[in-house]
Amino acid sequence: MSKIAVIGIGPGSMADMTQRAKAAMENADIIMGYNTYIELVKKHFPGKEFLSSGMTREIERCRLALQKALEGKSVALISSGDSGIYGMAGIMLEVVNHSGIGIPVEVMPGVTAASAAAAILGAPIMHDFVVISLSDLMTPLEQIYKRVECAAQGDFVICLYNPKSKSRVDYIEKARDIVLKYRETTTPVGIVRNAGRENEASDMATLTNMLDFEIDMFTVVIIGNSKTYFENGRMITPRGYDL
Amino acid sequence: MSKIAVIGIGPGSMADMTQRAKAAMENADIIMGYNTYIELVKKHFPGKEFLSSGMTREIERCRLALQKALEGKSVALISSGDSGIYGMAGIMLEVVNHSGIGIPVEVMPGVTAASAAAAILGAPIMHDFVVISLSDLMTPLEQIYKRVECAAQGDFVICLYNPKSKSRVDYIEKARDIVLKYRETTTPVGIVRNAGRENEASDMATLTNMLDFEIDMFTVVIIGNSKTYFENGRMITPRGYDL
Repeated sequence: MSKIAVIGIGPGSMADMTQRAKAAMENADIIMGYNTYIELVKKHFPGKEFLSSGMTREIERCRLALQKALEGKSVALISSGDSGIYGMAGIMLEVVNHSGIGIPVEVMPGVTAASAAAAILGAPIMHDFVVISLSDLMTPLEQIYKRVECAAQGDFVICLYNPKSKSRVDYIEKARDIVLKYRETTTPVGIVRNAGRENEASDMATLTNMLDFEIDMFTVVIIGNSKTYFENGRMITPRGYDL
Repeated sequence: MSKIAVIGIGPGSMADMTQRAKAAMENADIIMGYNTYIELVKKHFPGKEFLSSGMTREIERCRLALQKALEGKSVALISSGDSGIYGMAGIMLEVVNHSGIGIPVEVMPGVTAASAAAAILGAPIMHDFVVISLSDLMTPLEQIYKRVECAAQGDFVICLYNPKSKSRVDYIEKARDIVLKYRETTTPVGIVRNAGRENEASDMATLTNMLDFEIDMFTVVIIGNSKTYFENGRMITPRGYDL
């Protein structure tokens, strides 16, 4: 039957993928996605048909998925992390709604980057948190900074996705400066690159020195709340238990 | 070798568990956790030793996990959803640090309830979001409301965990009233009970009528941002693509 599954594959390794996601990819006729993610999974699904495309090609990719589904194919459209968090779920549903064609779309969740990064650092998001993308491709920069400010005021743990790219090098510095208006310079900051992938690496920093560490578009930055601390190489935000 | 794995089992079904989590539970000598979660997984790991305890027994459970690890056992300590989000990861690390004993603790992430609920509703957390627990067992109520207020001001999608229990029936109403200061009465609200479990159910509501629907401690409430909408039975927060 023709249908589309929008699948969150998790951080990248097969081990961190849910069993539902794996089965759906095995049962699909075609697996589609952004080049980098197709490369991550390709070797684990031998003999499968793959269709990959570049970044910023999301609408095109969804239209092609719809077309393939209309041709009777079962399509697995993948995102890294959770397909429902800055992934392909929303745009796929929008493209189908816009087309007026009643193709069934199932969204399958995955482990999002904040969860993967947090597990590597210890337990930094044990309490209320926000997730903010610093990419201004589709969001006005002033709205992004307003959200960082509100998150800082609310003493949320702050998880920053897409903290830096070649064309956006200073947004993370500006975000840091906004948080510094509300939190101590010693506030712990965890920096995780390539969580759950080859070349995974992490650093434990503070608001003061966080910009001295390597941060790129495959990095998640987690800024602790006022109670977060480092101990024995782990970043911990206490939930409030009295030991 | 004696060690402790703190495992997020995802929303509840085996299908939504990561392969890493499943393997770790299969390889453990003992699987420990809150009664309800042990009941969810017990039948899938036949012949395994289980130790379950009640809610509010978290510190005790971690101390027992540590003791079992010191006896040479490999312990799998489970949480529903992601072990690192209001789960057992933080308290387990704190108990080990407090003991001064160098037992290795590995944190394994899972699909958190917000992701599971979002997938059922459609794609409501495609943009910046917050997760807030309305439980005031260990957090001052005024801090919880302050966070709801900051989240509303920042136009975040708001995911509420533990929205209601027998002793906390009006916090969700107060939270709703705070959000209403900043958002339209017609703002979409998705309500998901028992995501990924038996008796899964969901409702699509608005800020006006959300309190007319069943909300309990196994419910996740997702309040849309100013751009969220319902279409064809799905709740969608647009990322900003121009169709």
